[in-house]
Amino acid sequence: MSTFTRLIRFLAKDGRTYYGDAITTPGANDLTRVTQAKIIRGSPWGRHEVTDQVADVRTLLAPLAREDIQTVRCLGLNYERHAREANMPIPTYPVLFYKPITSITGPFDPIPVPAPAQEAPGLDYECELVAVIGKQGVDIPESEALDYVAGYCVGNDVSHREWQLKRGGGQWGLGKGFDGWAPIGPAIVSSSIIKDPQNLKIKTVLNGETVQESSTKDMIFGVAKTIAILSQGTTLLPGDLIFTGTPQGVGMGRKPQLWLKNGDKIEVSLEGVGSCINIVEFANAPDSQPRAKL
Amino acid sequence: MSTFTRLIRFLAKDGRTYYGDAITTPGANDLTRVTQAKIIRGSPWGRHEVTDQVADVRTLLAPLAREDIQTVRCLGLNYERHAREANMPIPTYPVLFYKPITSITGPFDPIPVPAPAQEAPGLDYECELVAVIGKQGVDIPESEALDYVAGYCVGNDVSHREWQLKRGGGQWGLGKGFDGWAPIGPAIVSSSIIKDPQNLKIKTVLNGETVQESSTKDMIFGVAKTIAILSQGTTLLPGDLIFTGTPQGVGMGRKPQLWLKNGDKIEVSLEGVGSCINIVEFANAPDSQPRAKL
Repeated sequence: MSTFTRLIRFLAKDGRTYYGDAITTPGANDLTRVTQAKIIRGSPWGRHEVTDQVADVRTLLAPLAREDIQTVRCLGLNYERHAREANMPIPTYPVLFYKPITSITGPFDPIPVPAPAQEAPGLDYECELVAVIGKQGVDIPESEALDYVAGYCVGNDVSHREWQLKRGGGQWGLGKGFDGWAPIGPAIVSSSIIKDPQNLKIKTVLNGETVQESSTKDMIFGVAKTIAILSQGTTLLPGDLIFTGTPQGVGMGRKPQLWLKNGDKIEVSLEGVGSCINIVEFANAPDSQPRAKL
Repeated sequence: MSTFTRLIRFLAKDGRTYYGDAITTPGANDLTRVTQAKIIRGSPWGRHEVTDQVADVRTLLAPLAREDIQTVRCLGLNYERHAREANMPIPTYPVLFYKPITSITGPFDPIPVPAPAQEAPGLDYECELVAVIGKQGVDIPESEALDYVAGYCVGNDVSHREWQLKRGGGQWGLGKGFDGWAPIGPAIVSSSIIKDPQNLKIKTVLNGETVQESSTKDMIFGVAKTIAILSQGTTLLPGDLIFTGTPQGVGMGRKPQLWLKNGDKIEVSLEGVGSCINIVEFANAPDSQPRAKL
């Protein structure tokens, strides 16, 4: 298993990109504003070493490079009050869908909104605890499941309700998979530090106003049970991500409904981890900036 | 773009695993029984070279190694008569879902059926044309879309209707993602050879009886249109697979319904490509064989 405690990936002041183990001050457990890290050599899932070489962080990137991410699984309706606000039944089994790896982006990157997602209202946020699998396993018992988790980060399962619910024939694929619609970060905090993922405050702040505020203890399927069920006959790999669902308070469930618009600042945060803070950026909007190609 | 014409991956008689360009006899365009290939050095998506070194094929493997596969997208209800037999509306947009990369398996590997998929009836086959993306692109126009396809193979989108339709809260993730539930192969035939993917016979034979028989010309969203829609604001990567949906004749749509059982031999084939021929293997059935771990 991995030896890091707070895995980050970052552009350093020397202009290079590194994996690192974030250096925190005692008692500070918000990785959003980390400034220094010990450089990690190697891949987090292969041979690697946390060195004593300290680098200055210029920009935090998604804590995993694309080649170190495998399958991105997500749960729907995994908090009871969210299922109710969505007018959906409380699930008996996990509601499983996927996002493509190209949806993963950094904790402070813009969320690009392409033209098709601007045609109709429905752009929404979903703050989620993301469990990062660090060890290969299949048919994992619930009692051992957390041993397979390298660590946790926070993610935003950005969703477009029109494409998700009305245009996809009932499948959610079209409304959740656009480039950059899954910011994750700011760090992957090791499960040696977060021993209980079911007692963490989680919240979303939109343009300074708190819109989601809950605790991971309200999950219907906790992380361990989710891993036990999803690994039935299904091999989980190091670098698999599991987005564990969002609590109540999404824009779709509010009265009146509240949709993200160009320029909005959306912050999702998880206790002990920190925040992803992203600006919504409509492609080809009058004031839009050209964005880097993948 | 890639330089291969019929990409295979195989265990050779020398005991090693290679990528290769299958050697065919003039006029033979079924890759199921290929016996020799020119060894390819390098990754199909990176620098690679088709050498003149000929190897003898012992066993065909999935034509892409796991590290050369990115996201596996699938379409549902993409043949009109299949949508009707499933009692589903004809889609206006592609019905998009995903399979994990661990579902991909070789053209002649067993299809393992774990205990949860044995609890209820519903195990079913779906023969599909699979388009393999060979070039990165986003917002790809329909008129250029086929230039992004490295080639085509046939795949079986193995599905469990109880888990897919009744236990997943409407999302199909739970019923289609088990290990080895997506045999592909036997080769990826280059789009320089298959210039028109919309005029190929496709069929399924179960224990010697033809159960699906159609043509890819009956697709609702053809390959080019599918790529155009799925690439809107979404970067497609070399090694992305697109399962393009199955025609009528699946077990769920038959009267009486016909479910796969332990030991069944299921063959899916595509004109110009060949067949995947797989044995259904219930885990822990009285006559089951231990299977290799991933």
